[in-house]
Amino acid sequence: MNGFCRSLAVSHVHTFAGNPLDRGDAERRDPAWLEARARAPESRYLPLHQLNVLVDAGGEGPRLGWLKSSDVARLEVDVPPVFLGLDDDGVACFAQDISEVHDPSHELNLPGGLSFQESRSAAMALPGAETGILAQARAQIGWHQRHQFCSVCGERTVQGKGGVVRSCPGCGADHFPRTDPVAIMLIVDGDRCLLGQSNGPLVRIGMFSALAGFIEQGESIEEAVRRETLEEAGIRVGRVRYHSSQPWPFPSSLMIGCHGVAESTDITIDTEEMHDVRWVDRDTVRAALAGEDVGLKVPGEIAIAHHLIRAWAEGEVSLTA
Amino acid sequence: MNGFCRSLAVSHVHTFAGNPLDRGDAERRDPAWLEARARAPESRYLPLHQLNVLVDAGGEGPRLGWLKSSDVARLEVDVPPVFLGLDDDGVACFAQDISEVHDPSHELNLPGGLSFQESRSAAMALPGAETGILAQARAQIGWHQRHQFCSVCGERTVQGKGGVVRSCPGCGADHFPRTDPVAIMLIVDGDRCLLGQSNGPLVRIGMFSALAGFIEQGESIEEAVRRETLEEAGIRVGRVRYHSSQPWPFPSSLMIGCHGVAESTDITIDTEEMHDVRWVDRDTVRAALAGEDVGLKVPGEIAIAHHLIRAWAEGEVSLTA
Repeated sequence: MNGFCRSLAVSHVHTFAGNPLDRGDAERRDPAWLEARARAPESRYLPLHQLNVLVDAGGEGPRLGWLKSSDVARLEVDVPPVFLGLDDDGVACFAQDISEVHDPSHELNLPGGLSFQESRSAAMALPGAETGILAQARAQIGWHQRHQFCSVCGERTVQGKGGVVRSCPGCGADHFPRTDPVAIMLIVDGDRCLLGQSNGPLVRIGMFSALAGFIEQGESIEEAVRRETLEEAGIRVGRVRYHSSQPWPFPSSLMIGCHGVAESTDITIDTEEMHDVRWVDRDTVRAALAGEDVGLKVPGEIAIAHHLIRAWAEGEVSLTA
Repeated sequence: MNGFCRSLAVSHVHTFAGNPLDRGDAERRDPAWLEARARAPESRYLPLHQLNVLVDAGGEGPRLGWLKSSDVARLEVDVPPVFLGLDDDGVACFAQDISEVHDPSHELNLPGGLSFQESRSAAMALPGAETGILAQARAQIGWHQRHQFCSVCGERTVQGKGGVVRSCPGCGADHFPRTDPVAIMLIVDGDRCLLGQSNGPLVRIGMFSALAGFIEQGESIEEAVRRETLEEAGIRVGRVRYHSSQPWPFPSSLMIGCHGVAESTDITIDTEEMHDVRWVDRDTVRAALAGEDVGLKVPGEIAIAHHLIRAWAEGEVSLTA
């Protein structure tokens, strides 16, 4: 029988998943509750400055840097906070865009160990659960920054329900944060897999990864896997098997990771998008995963691509055409 | 061992998937090519009037109703066509929003058998592959209608690349069609499954379905399954297993279908969203699928919910906690 065989005990919680907060779906419907929580002294604020996040490196390892509501009030920023949810102790957590502050470290009088860091680099050092909070905060604040106006009529919109909607006072339209589903797929032909370099930063660092592309309107996950692989590499794909998913907040994607079985082998590259695509044998992939110099690098553990590649290379997923 | 067991030979192509067109990713980058194809006499135009689609019921069964470029030119609508892709013969296919035409049947002088129909009803009668084309057309035209203005700066935007981008001449921002990933899940507790009625039309017709909800920013598919089930029904979910996916063009969702294993059984309903949620045993579900009167209806084959329910009821998917 054609098919896939996969260990059933495996569970994948990728970087940027595992957010421990209760998003407070019921609570955020109550504007008075939100306002009281926003002012409460025990509430916690995660500030983002031009999408860089506050990190506290003062303890045993880097952690998210939280401010008090009084710290944020002192900054007098003109942007409403985004309600992230409730922590295990029932304390309300907010994200706060402070991009309009010129020198936040100075104005906040930050002690040593606290600094604003690029979110992706920060995520590589933070505990897993905190990357989930960071993903939510980074994606939501990025969305608000780029959705100040109504796409229906062009009026200025207003944030509602703690940040999960922007409403238009002009035409009444509601706009919700967007999440773009992306198919990312490791295509396999027997004992080799298909890795590619898109034009851009991957080329400079010699890195090859799984192919990927946005799922289009009117398309299933499996169809997107086949279309993107055909477009980028000229390879036809048969069976497709879902593996796991990862939120990717740059700016706001949902990476849907799959394995697929090649039904053709001759590569034709779309040179507008791809710099190189090649078949790589399992031994080379294993060596690259181990950090050996084999002429190509593979993505690190922060990326779902790493786990798709490792799952196949180590035999966790076995595929037959 | 905890786990799932699923037949490996099953493949799911739901209604609204299975689009046979080549979306022409390379061709649509060439504005001159697009313009020539838009005017070519052999090109095919699928018209949508206020999101209703032209259907040809004159043959052996209903089919999509295609117009010629000359028909569309005569209407003098002021909306650019959306390039859907190339059919098997290499003929360019477009979707055309003709909502501004007052009485399209009259102005097109449509022969008997051709009429504009609500897209969802039409899909229930069309051949499978044509529902894929309809999904693409319906989703894309709906998106253009609601994205005439730039969300960054409020300027009017302009369609590009045959409809897969809208660009802002004011600030230079590019905007891409959105697809909202939705988790839809059948939660199982031994020999019974969790079915719900959201407030709205399901209640009137006595229909119960799988629970569902939008995947939020910074959230994996599996996390969304657990959060939504907890929010809507108060049920904790452990293992989650992906089943299949379905594009749902009302307006533009990607339904990601999963099964999940309940870790608690006492139902607490979110009355703001849900009218009723209950455990239903397998025999009752089977009878409902067979159309028997058992006090509740389940969704028909057009919806992925039907297939999630059937896969479990018929033992294609077996789940243990």
